[in-house]
Amino acid sequence: MIVMDKAGLQAFLARDFAQVADDFVVERADAQGLCLRLRVQDRHLRPGGTVSGPAIFALADVAMYLAVLSRIGPVALAVTTNCSIDFMRKPQAGVDLLAEARVLKLGRSLAVGDVMVFSEGGVDPVARAGLSYSIPPAR
Amino acid sequence: MIVMDKAGLQAFLARDFAQVADDFVVERADAQGLCLRLRVQDRHLRPGGTVSGPAIFALADVAMYLAVLSRIGPVALAVTTNCSIDFMRKPQAGVDLLAEARVLKLGRSLAVGDVMVFSEGGVDPVARAGLSYSIPPAR
Amino acid sequence: MIVMDKAGLQAFLARDFAQVADDFVVERADAQGLCLRLRVQDRHLRPGGTVSGPAIFALADVAMYLAVLSRIGPVALAVTTNCSIDFMRKPQAGVDLLAEARVLKLGRSLAVGDVMVFSEGGVDPVARAGLSYSIPPAR
Amino acid sequence: MIVMDKAGLQAFLARDFAQVADDFVVERADAQGLCLRLRVQDRHLRPGGTVSGPAIFALADVAMYLAVLSRIGPVALAVTTNCSIDFMRKPQAGVDLLAEARVLKLGRSLAVGDVMVFSEGGVDPVARAGLSYSIPPAR
Repeated sequence: MIVMDKAGLQAFLARDFAQVADDFVVERADAQGLCLRLRVQDRHLRPGGTVSGPAIFALADVAMYLAVLSRIGPVALAVTTNCSIDFMRKPQAGVDLLAEARVLKLGRSLAVGDVMVFSEGGVDPVARAGLSYSIPPAR
Repeated sequence: MIVMDKAGLQAFLARDFAQVADDFVVERADAQGLCLRLRVQDRHLRPGGTVSGPAIFALADVAMYLAVLSRIGPVALAVTTNCSIDFMRKPQAGVDLLAEARVLKLGRSLAVGDVMVFSEGGVDPVARAGLSYSIPPAR
Repeated sequence: MIVMDKAGLQAFLARDFAQVADDFVVERADAQGLCLRLRVQDRHLRPGGTVSGPAIFALADVAMYLAVLSRIGPVALAVTTNCSIDFMRKPQAGVDLLAEARVLKLGRSLAVGDVMVFSEGGVDPVARAGLSYSIPPAR
Repeated sequence: MIVMDKAGLQAFLARDFAQVADDFVVERADAQGLCLRLRVQDRHLRPGGTVSGPAIFALADVAMYLAVLSRIGPVALAVTTNCSIDFMRKPQAGVDLLAEARVLKLGRSLAVGDVMVFSEGGVDPVARAGLSYSIPPAR
């Protein structure tokens, strides 16, 4: 079921998304889903030292994208069509964020999944997102 | 953490939501969350025998509402403020639907959770929803 | 651009969605969008006389579905894939609800739009929804 | 109804969101809503030259945040609680993005609105978002 593993996904990021590849580390990719780390840096922070909403959104989006690719291979043209995200708690200062992504449906033209975001070491989720991806017909 | 159990929630439904109380059965209510059954009947069906979107929405909404009440008690004035729902698969014909609801955040004025809906006996989810509730200040 | 008009859509509802056709009246269907009326009846109400969330969801869903069909013809197999709905105000008691639906994107396999719901005669919206539909390839 | 105008909002951005203030220009702020420009730069782009999803999300989020502040004043502690965003079309290469934000509800503790994002000069929307903000009680 997994056609791209952790190393393959990280290499795909480095090659096709060079601008953001340093931000993200694939921690795990298996049949249960994918765990992605956001290496929090100054440019991700809002006043007060908390990770910004767009940085959390990017983490959720990339995590689900890679979870889909782990199942269908390097289809760079898959695009996010919808994301509904709930921001629930401030991330803890000074630690990375981890996103746990699950693919819930993988259809011919549409993939759907959800993502839970945590501060590393935290138990209460920072954010939760549902995402949909359009998959191009040519695969 | 649980201040209303399965029997208390079912009684609350019967008293305050008499119109729909017969549709729903609380299967489980504990620290992990709540499982609610939709007893599928003709009025829930669309042409072709599949459960309608609004009936699935109602199941998710009532499941999360009761999961919140199981933690805060019978606050009839809590209201849904947002629901984002992904419909992923047709429900199986002729079987009930089961919703698994989790409370992810319970703040002073806002509760957030998610719900996964399955056909009874099925493993792939029919729908997934994230929901937010506004909790009146007077509690 | 409009391939089914008000009368055609109402007839489609009566034929393919007989169970709910009496609830809904197509008020307008043109290049700008579609206006659908929910003829509020007792079965749509929650305790206190307000229209229930699932009834508002159904109104938004049917309005967008008909707005899509007004552009592509009677494709009964188009299905809702996502709905994100914000409930903002209690509907006024004793009046119908009106939904204004707009198609924002009509792609080969995916249609996206939004809906604003008002109490008849009211100026502040009761609810707002964004919806996505999957369109079967065979059209 | 407007308590902070275009100049006041731009100054607020420069002071409290220095890291991103150069990205955004408030084009208009009035009773109808707010128009915000994303000055597209290399760091906003994905491979192929299109604006990234997180950059579009950030534009929608900041536009709605400023639209809320234009009505309640500089409440830096207002936080996004939910965003549901539909990505509908690729932005045009080489032009800025414009976001039109409307406040649909401004309650005591919750604000709700929607945003439509366009490529400058384009007529078909690039993205559409519904957003909710929690407003701290102390205002």
